[in-house]
Amino acid sequence: MKANGTLIFLTDFGSCDWYVASMKAAALTANKSVQILDITHEISPGSVSEGSFVLDRCYHDFPAGTTFVVVVDPGVGTYRSPLIIITDDYAFVGPDNGVLYPVVNKLCIQHCIRIESPEWMGKKTSNTFHGRDIFAPAGSHLAAGKSVTEAGPSVESIVQFEFPKPVRQDSRMTGRFLYFDRFGNGLTNLLSEHLDTQALAGLRIGETVFPLAKTFGEVEVGDPVCYWGSSGFLEVAIRDGNAKERFQFTENTTTEPVYEN
Amino acid sequence: MKANGTLIFLTDFGSCDWYVASMKAAALTANKSVQILDITHEISPGSVSEGSFVLDRCYHDFPAGTTFVVVVDPGVGTYRSPLIIITDDYAFVGPDNGVLYPVVNKLCIQHCIRIESPEWMGKKTSNTFHGRDIFAPAGSHLAAGKSVTEAGPSVESIVQFEFPKPVRQDSRMTGRFLYFDRFGNGLTNLLSEHLDTQALAGLRIGETVFPLAKTFGEVEVGDPVCYWGSSGFLEVAIRDGNAKERFQFTENTTTEPVYEN
Amino acid sequence: MKANGTLIFLTDFGSCDWYVASMKAAALTANKSVQILDITHEISPGSVSEGSFVLDRCYHDFPAGTTFVVVVDPGVGTYRSPLIIITDDYAFVGPDNGVLYPVVNKLCIQHCIRIESPEWMGKKTSNTFHGRDIFAPAGSHLAAGKSVTEAGPSVESIVQFEFPKPVRQDSRMTGRFLYFDRFGNGLTNLLSEHLDTQALAGLRIGETVFPLAKTFGEVEVGDPVCYWGSSGFLEVAIRDGNAKERFQFTENTTTEPVYEN
Repeated sequence: MKANGTLIFLTDFGSCDWYVASMKAAALTANKSVQILDITHEISPGSVSEGSFVLDRCYHDFPAGTTFVVVVDPGVGTYRSPLIIITDDYAFVGPDNGVLYPVVNKLCIQHCIRIESPEWMGKKTSNTFHGRDIFAPAGSHLAAGKSVTEAGPSVESIVQFEFPKPVRQDSRMTGRFLYFDRFGNGLTNLLSEHLDTQALAGLRIGETVFPLAKTFGEVEVGDPVCYWGSSGFLEVAIRDGNAKERFQFTENTTTEPVYEN
Repeated sequence: MKANGTLIFLTDFGSCDWYVASMKAAALTANKSVQILDITHEISPGSVSEGSFVLDRCYHDFPAGTTFVVVVDPGVGTYRSPLIIITDDYAFVGPDNGVLYPVVNKLCIQHCIRIESPEWMGKKTSNTFHGRDIFAPAGSHLAAGKSVTEAGPSVESIVQFEFPKPVRQDSRMTGRFLYFDRFGNGLTNLLSEHLDTQALAGLRIGETVFPLAKTFGEVEVGDPVCYWGSSGFLEVAIRDGNAKERFQFTENTTTEPVYEN
Repeated sequence: MKANGTLIFLTDFGSCDWYVASMKAAALTANKSVQILDITHEISPGSVSEGSFVLDRCYHDFPAGTTFVVVVDPGVGTYRSPLIIITDDYAFVGPDNGVLYPVVNKLCIQHCIRIESPEWMGKKTSNTFHGRDIFAPAGSHLAAGKSVTEAGPSVESIVQFEFPKPVRQDSRMTGRFLYFDRFGNGLTNLLSEHLDTQALAGLRIGETVFPLAKTFGEVEVGDPVCYWGSSGFLEVAIRDGNAKERFQFTENTTTEPVYEN
């Protein structure tokens, strides 16, 4: 990877406190000319799965050479390692708690390093704010193109985490929800590879069938619909409404494909 | 318009998901050196009127040459057109659903174009995420100064939308609220042109009179006040309080000017 | 101070309206090349103490030469002065209502100036939006290195504000909470200088003892813990939980140090 100077933050720090600002300040201190952008800081506190899912949805939209700092780190101050993982096109910095796993597991990893060198950290140290003291400075150095080989020792294996996969019941795949977005649309874990896409007619959830459509516009306002979302997952929605609220979906709600007769 | 490299986003995507990040990523992919800022992403889901109102309040504060990408797009994937509208001082990108109308309707339009050229879009395509796939790349190209004439065909007319105007009852104008801000202050649709500003003494809403003042400081803490706001509208507030909550104002609440005897 | 071109905003404007965008637009209008970042805009409306506390937690993380614009200004439009305060390493812009006091009071002040020159303001003027019309343009000029001496007259004294200090009851210090963060962690006003840190074993709050630890990892998930936070204050938390919600802490809750026998 050839760093392009862009540093992207994804955390569960929220937007009310000073934590995000302190991280960005530490990044600017390490490298004044870094270009900083955010994915979100509203990951549910400590939710490694949610952080991982959001990263997986959008990292590939960024130009090659982009560096990501991901801090969803309920184990801060314990013995989990701070990691740098460099792939062909991107660099990732974050705790070794699985949050980076789903993304890097499908990429070609060039380096996987435990951050140990003080040269890669900030001047301050704490037991509770590695975002500021370790992850942001390391990310900023990466974004500036600093050679990673002196950041610390190589790591052979990292903590694994996987999103729940669809399960086969009798002869059919049953999916569940991985995520609900702001609009109340639900992203299932059903990909085209799990289904007979030629015959797929919709999704049954409880007593409601969400008919498959190409766009929301194919159903009436207020009607249920399912569609292949921009992330490749089968998604469900209410046109101009909030499906999660109306049907009280949870992440444990199961979804069953409906096929044409 | 001569583009100044600045790209401003205004959407209803919220700040919790990855949608805003994916849009910005697509903008950076199209034009690495674009300067990105946000108005807000907290427009109520699908509210064309709210998106339009917020854009109208602040676009003119930006330097000439700024490009705006506005994505409040409940009809994404249907046949509404993706538009580029260039005025003397600014460029606007967004769906043809009225959200750009109140702003561009009062400006001098140089070009109004339906985005059709793949050169102006991103590499990905979807039926549900034109913010990433069309609007952000197009905005980024505009911000970089790309000539718009090859983006697509000219459009003769666009979908219209207007904010509700004050109505005359007997001999007086009756206003209503167009917007409530974070502080609970209410912006009415009453402009100086609607009222006898020399004789204006306040606004009556229900049984409460909000006396006209130049600043909050002219009334006691906790007292109602009305004033000509920074946007030119007559606004009502409670000094150091939340008028919307206290009086349970809605957008249908009517306001009636009170004149000196 | 030698300005480094970076301008940081901290306000109570929220993230839903256009106020932050208008401020940034005014900053760009004054100085196109300024680098803009945010601390937060979610300070509770009008809370000078909260704005001040958040600024105090993170300003020192930014590189020397950074300019801060702080707008928590319930008295906008009254006779409070708009201030520029320049210290050895930083520049601060904001209303003279105490919000800058806790930070600048401990720094070496080079200049303290009341903004009066129209050259330092924006082109628009209003009685209710000095963030856009005065503070942002002034901050942008400072960030660009404009000499402050012509901005207005020197000010001899400014409005003071101090965070509540621990109080001595019998022979012991009793603290209280200054802030609760997104995670429900509570920052007390107890610093190491207030306590016998060698003998400190924890904090008693109501009937619960929060044992002192170096990291969250020293206690079980769901257990209470106290620790010296990244800001130097003694903080309390529930590991992987929300202490504020569980114990219904408020800013008036008192905390009492527990020492080893």
